[in-house]
Amino acid sequence: MTYIRVGVIGIGNIGTMHATNIYQNKIQGMKLTAVCDLRQSQLELCQKTFVDVSIYSDYNLLLDSGEVDAVVIAVPHRLHAKIAIDALQAGLHVLLEKPIDVTVKEARKLIEVSEHVDKKFAIMLNQRTNKLFQKAHEIVQGGYLGELKRSIWIVTNWYRTQFYYDSGDWRATWDGEGGGVLINQAPHNLDLWQWICGMPDSVRAFCNVAKYHNIEVEDEATIYTKYKNGATGIFITTTGEYPGTNRLEISGDKGKIVLEHGMLKLWKLEESEREFCYSLDVNFPKIPYDYEEITRKEKESGHIGIMQNFANAILHDEQLISPGKDGICELAISNAAYLSEWTGNAEIALPFDEDAFDEMLNDCCKNSKVIKHNMAKCKSNENNLDRWQVRW
Amino acid sequence: MTYIRVGVIGIGNIGTMHATNIYQNKIQGMKLTAVCDLRQSQLELCQKTFVDVSIYSDYNLLLDSGEVDAVVIAVPHRLHAKIAIDALQAGLHVLLEKPIDVTVKEARKLIEVSEHVDKKFAIMLNQRTNKLFQKAHEIVQGGYLGELKRSIWIVTNWYRTQFYYDSGDWRATWDGEGGGVLINQAPHNLDLWQWICGMPDSVRAFCNVAKYHNIEVEDEATIYTKYKNGATGIFITTTGEYPGTNRLEISGDKGKIVLEHGMLKLWKLEESEREFCYSLDVNFPKIPYDYEEITRKEKESGHIGIMQNFANAILHDEQLISPGKDGICELAISNAAYLSEWTGNAEIALPFDEDAFDEMLNDCCKNSKVIKHNMAKCKSNENNLDRWQVRW
Repeated sequence: MTYIRVGVIGIGNIGTMHATNIYQNKIQGMKLTAVCDLRQSQLELCQKTFVDVSIYSDYNLLLDSGEVDAVVIAVPHRLHAKIAIDALQAGLHVLLEKPIDVTVKEARKLIEVSEHVDKKFAIMLNQRTNKLFQKAHEIVQGGYLGELKRSIWIVTNWYRTQFYYDSGDWRATWDGEGGGVLINQAPHNLDLWQWICGMPDSVRAFCNVAKYHNIEVEDEATIYTKYKNGATGIFITTTGEYPGTNRLEISGDKGKIVLEHGMLKLWKLEESEREFCYSLDVNFPKIPYDYEEITRKEKESGHIGIMQNFANAILHDEQLISPGKDGICELAISNAAYLSEWTGNAEIALPFDEDAFDEMLNDCCKNSKVIKHNMAKCKSNENNLDRWQVRW
Repeated sequence: MTYIRVGVIGIGNIGTMHATNIYQNKIQGMKLTAVCDLRQSQLELCQKTFVDVSIYSDYNLLLDSGEVDAVVIAVPHRLHAKIAIDALQAGLHVLLEKPIDVTVKEARKLIEVSEHVDKKFAIMLNQRTNKLFQKAHEIVQGGYLGELKRSIWIVTNWYRTQFYYDSGDWRATWDGEGGGVLINQAPHNLDLWQWICGMPDSVRAFCNVAKYHNIEVEDEATIYTKYKNGATGIFITTTGEYPGTNRLEISGDKGKIVLEHGMLKLWKLEESEREFCYSLDVNFPKIPYDYEEITRKEKESGHIGIMQNFANAILHDEQLISPGKDGICELAISNAAYLSEWTGNAEIALPFDEDAFDEMLNDCCKNSKVIKHNMAKCKSNENNLDRWQVRW
């Protein structure tokens, strides 16, 4: 195989961008050969935009067409696992938009299928291409900070207007998205959080529904986590603050890192705090540490980086930056957060009761009362690549 | 009255410092005329150090001596309200060390007494003299940020060694101190938090007992608060991280402030976010804001500033920076935090059930099992004034 024939399923905001990137040969070794959408308007747009690309309104026909080796799936959240399973079972490589699905149960089914086929399965966790987060992952997972003590991520710069929420009838509904800021905006951060710090043992959450917008899901959430070793974590996110903050702090027994304003600050102790806590005969010690400020001029490769890595994985067996199976981790945190909110902010141990979660989510969907009055469209000049970069 | 004759009750670490400051005429209008302690060793020390100053081992004799117009009280926490009440009722002005007491119930009794006597009653919340916190108070309470949305204080730079905890048999015990980091180190921050942001409506807390030290109380706590207007807050503190963080962030609908590294950063919107959220027809707006960095070269006046203000209040009716009655606010937050921890991390509405709190605290005291093996003493060179300044 000298190049991969790619189909993009779902030609909405992000799907259009992916299809365009491939069509414009921005990904080496990929060629756009087919697209699929249910909406007539989108199909007509595709016909004008993508010359010599097959157009489908039924994704099953695309999967069976023989015209594609791989698909990029960018459909509404609740169809993620289903279509990805169908694609893998049709013998195709799959790059799936985040979140992996809306429920951990569906995600688990997908991962199981992916483990029994010899196809590449990746997920679009594009912020993993950011060099500072990669450095943080390397520092923490490499044990450079010692044992994790505490982590706190304030990521409140996911600001959205009411116009945004009104721009799609599926937006910010239980049925359409399966949640609010935790399932739509924060998955990148939840993923990076667990990628860098590891998975928590338990999750407790305080989700504020419609605090800042006319929506039926949460637009502010605070999560409190406990880790196996006793470490604790806080994660705060919202689409209702301006200007927001993006600051990740991680403390270990050998130091601390803070990521903020495009910089990673590192405080490194020579010996573990656990040692001098019990050996020093002073009350208020001043312990020397190394301090370093790390920046990365290089822009993150983002969506294109993930797609290139996916292509390289297929063509040259390159290791995936964001393997599909990793997608279940951040989803487990957000599912557990909802379950906590729905059960009186209880502490939810992981793994949690997936049937109980599905039942409660279904109740939310049934009780959906949102009516969108002011269906608006994204302004095309907003859909630039910069928008997807990490904002500090 | 041209000067105030002052007695200091309790000549421990901090009481010695207060007495010395007065004795050395560092407070205009104050003269040290009496000191009181139970311990023979301290009385002998006083005799050598403070010439022409009366020495008492029974504070009641000091109160009735006719030698003092005001007292500074620096005794173990659980005696705070009791001795302050006795002093006020003896017709003396009172400056009380923080916390106001260990229980809100006792604090309430003290405040009631103070309201029926014509004497000045202040509390040693010395970090209120910090110019940056004063500026934050002015900005937030002046409505400059608009409606409060969210506050978060990470104050994890209260590092303490095991040696520190071993340096007094009352330290970090339920009976001796009435709690851990929340009652000993964090009261300054809890007070400033409520002074700047106002009192929360409810408190939920996660207190980790003996996480980093051999003690029977918490050395790490995370508090989640809700305010009347729907705003939320997080407060994180510990004595077990090195190097720690001291960072206060407050968001309102008209902007944000961050206090860190001795600087107050101010982001100020021209109009309320609540306005443009519903009026803009873009999804991801970039709203202009003014940004300002505020520093204060002037060192906070700290303990001496509070004492000078107390003296000026008595002599010239100057307004108190930290009126005694304010002391109940931070204590209500920490009491509620303990109550939350003791009741399965429940949400505790303020005002809370004070009898329930007292009962549970008494149970903690009864079940105290701490034995101090290694009684150590504070090194005198550590007892410098800088130690009491805000650390960033």
